[in-house]
Amino acid sequence: MEDDSLTISRLRSEYSTGDRTPEQTVETVFDRIRADETNAWITVRDREAVLADAEALDAPADQPLYGVPFAVKDNIDVAGLPTTAACPAYAYEPEASATVVEKLLDAGALLIGKTNMDQFATGLVGTRSPYGVCRNVHNPAYISGGSSAGSAVAVARDHVAFALGTDTAGSGRVPAACNGIVGLKPTRGTVSTDGVVPACASLDCVSVFTDACSEALRVESVIAGFDSADPYSRRLAADTQFDPPTQDPDAVTVGLPETTGLEFFGDTEAERMFDRVCETVTAGFGESVRVDFDPFVETAELLYGGPWLAERLEAIETFVETHADAMNPIVERIVTEGRRYTAIDTFRALHELERLKRASARVFDDIDVLVTPTVGTIYTIEEVREQPMERNADLGYYTDYVNLLDLSAVAVPVGQYDDGPGFGVTVLGEAGDDPLVAAVGEQLRSMAATETATPATSTD
Amino acid sequence: MEDDSLTISRLRSEYSTGDRTPEQTVETVFDRIRADETNAWITVRDREAVLADAEALDAPADQPLYGVPFAVKDNIDVAGLPTTAACPAYAYEPEASATVVEKLLDAGALLIGKTNMDQFATGLVGTRSPYGVCRNVHNPAYISGGSSAGSAVAVARDHVAFALGTDTAGSGRVPAACNGIVGLKPTRGTVSTDGVVPACASLDCVSVFTDACSEALRVESVIAGFDSADPYSRRLAADTQFDPPTQDPDAVTVGLPETTGLEFFGDTEAERMFDRVCETVTAGFGESVRVDFDPFVETAELLYGGPWLAERLEAIETFVETHADAMNPIVERIVTEGRRYTAIDTFRALHELERLKRASARVFDDIDVLVTPTVGTIYTIEEVREQPMERNADLGYYTDYVNLLDLSAVAVPVGQYDDGPGFGVTVLGEAGDDPLVAAVGEQLRSMAATETATPATSTD
Repeated sequence: MEDDSLTISRLRSEYSTGDRTPEQTVETVFDRIRADETNAWITVRDREAVLADAEALDAPADQPLYGVPFAVKDNIDVAGLPTTAACPAYAYEPEASATVVEKLLDAGALLIGKTNMDQFATGLVGTRSPYGVCRNVHNPAYISGGSSAGSAVAVARDHVAFALGTDTAGSGRVPAACNGIVGLKPTRGTVSTDGVVPACASLDCVSVFTDACSEALRVESVIAGFDSADPYSRRLAADTQFDPPTQDPDAVTVGLPETTGLEFFGDTEAERMFDRVCETVTAGFGESVRVDFDPFVETAELLYGGPWLAERLEAIETFVETHADAMNPIVERIVTEGRRYTAIDTFRALHELERLKRASARVFDDIDVLVTPTVGTIYTIEEVREQPMERNADLGYYTDYVNLLDLSAVAVPVGQYDDGPGFGVTVLGEAGDDPLVAAVGEQLRSMAATETATPATSTD
Repeated sequence: MEDDSLTISRLRSEYSTGDRTPEQTVETVFDRIRADETNAWITVRDREAVLADAEALDAPADQPLYGVPFAVKDNIDVAGLPTTAACPAYAYEPEASATVVEKLLDAGALLIGKTNMDQFATGLVGTRSPYGVCRNVHNPAYISGGSSAGSAVAVARDHVAFALGTDTAGSGRVPAACNGIVGLKPTRGTVSTDGVVPACASLDCVSVFTDACSEALRVESVIAGFDSADPYSRRLAADTQFDPPTQDPDAVTVGLPETTGLEFFGDTEAERMFDRVCETVTAGFGESVRVDFDPFVETAELLYGGPWLAERLEAIETFVETHADAMNPIVERIVTEGRRYTAIDTFRALHELERLKRASARVFDDIDVLVTPTVGTIYTIEEVREQPMERNADLGYYTDYVNLLDLSAVAVPVGQYDDGPGFGVTVLGEAGDDPLVAAVGEQLRSMAATETATPATSTD
């Protein structure tokens, strides 16, 4: 498997020694995509067009992502390709690419195509798409997780070296966990969302899927930066050192949720895997402390039990009013719930959120990072079909609160279920701590890999 | 008049030389309040109790506000005194004082009492109170401005050396302008609002009325600071140097609104006074440039034409539902308008606000401070009675946008109408620029005073 992997560092190394050309990489990518049966893609570019891009590249030294193939979730604009948000009736063809896409192309990356997703990025399952249910790469009976389902699968299958997702409530982390890869969710406003279909505009982040945290951080260093076209953009990136993450583990205090705050929905296998991670944390880092997890759970409940549903509806209100029957019925049902809330409800929730931010900040006063499961359990596609709302909600237990509380996060793989799917944990930091969470995530991933007696194997 | 003034610097000087005692100050204060006919006060403390406080003071050197008499607006809690928010049916007696009050008492300041206001801080007029219409100190036919009406009047009449107001949409600046004093509105979150009746909790600021900007900044230095009990508190104060403001005027670029953005509501006298200020700015500071004022006007329109009315209602919803007939009918009408707005309206307005913040930031890229009129005109009490909503709205034209855009501001007196009331301008800066706006405000005030051929005189 290692030999087949398309990592940024490997490609850079092989390009520099002449062992590989970008054109060869493109051929490999298209051969793999042709063999795919996961429903990862919505639009794949014409192979000849990508080869032409590869031939037109500048020198490797000038382009940090020279010849690196990547995919973007289909709610991110690429000039000349339709943006569907997994809703054909909504599709449009943008004149300009999203800021993030422009930056990646300028850095020499090769765009392969656009990936499948839960419609309007509403879901954590990867099943809410008219382009087909996205399947878990380790066992096709299981969900891939979502909403950035195809982007995670395309990276896990080594179709591409990295892929962009979006992450409002966990869409950039849940599918990383399910498929055993890394999902970095930068601090809100660090990466421009200009040219991205909004889910909740005040919370949306562009996220990065890769095989390793160091690679995700390298991509973030290319796409980060203030963008005046994005009203929620912040000037954080200017102060951030994105160099390869280095952090002495002995100097890190890691928080772990009090066991009363943990929830595995009856999944004892997941519980055991997380217990093992806790032991790894305690042995491998300077200090580990159990922290009050209530403020995080309470914040998660605000997101889907409160007025932010109206923010989703606001983004596509005219479309919903005229094309409700062209939508995935579950997505339509969720989004139109937003009509129930008043302005008073909204300000009440915003005030409650400020109180919870304060409580979360107090937890972070005592720790450098927080480590939680990324998802407490995983479901089969059939289980999600039976209870689409409830099981989707279960998957957000550890992810929903993150953007509301303005945290940075990286989901890293640390294990695998006996029947295939990945199990992962998320390293959470305060706003601007993207390099720290990436460094700790990389260490934790490596410690977990060393400890696993039977190394994770793919079913393919 | 100068000899009668109770400024902090004068009191400190006279206490240090032994020319005055705090007890003598208390006697002076109570003599003046007894003679008052402006309806400035709702609750005045017992003279004996204040004298006992004066006797119990520590040494002047240890207390930056040793023996300085002050008042607080009656929406700020003082243990043992009722908080009415100018609504007797709402009144309660708090067990603890607001954080700001505690800090002032610890600094040696002497609390005299609580001042009149527009009910629930909803108004810019000073007429919406069952404790009587608050009158302009220079001409009783005119409004005092509001909502912090009594606090401004108590300072303008030299009942106290300084007074606390609150400022959500202009309540700490409009009455400063009308009565010819200084009103400093710190950056949101710099001064704790713990123990303050919320108007719009996400926007409310505690403000300071004084005779001079340097004195206002001295008070802010005592009351500023992070407070974990206030969910909207920020850690800005730790990075702020509140020392007496010094700023080379030649190094300051001052923005002035494009003339098309100015609005005087037919008041040619105010227009002439502002023209004179513009000449003073051009002559007295490094550079002056005309800037696009549209983003500010559009933001102001959001505040009272949008969902923030629901934030006002949210704060007192239960009371309004059960005691609507005990409220000032105009305030009740305004606040209950908040019921009209949905969560979708709210998120739409919040997104629009982010766009306007970006536009406002672009204006500030080219300037250090912005100088505008504080109010474009002033009305008589009778004129406000005739058109209570419209004329109140006129008064907010230059003030409503300030907290939405997260600006710092100080209102300074620069002139006087022929028939008495003050005319002022506001110096606006970005978040955290409180010392800068205070420094520029002080310079502008002093330049305007020098240029005025006939010095401003009080009618009393």
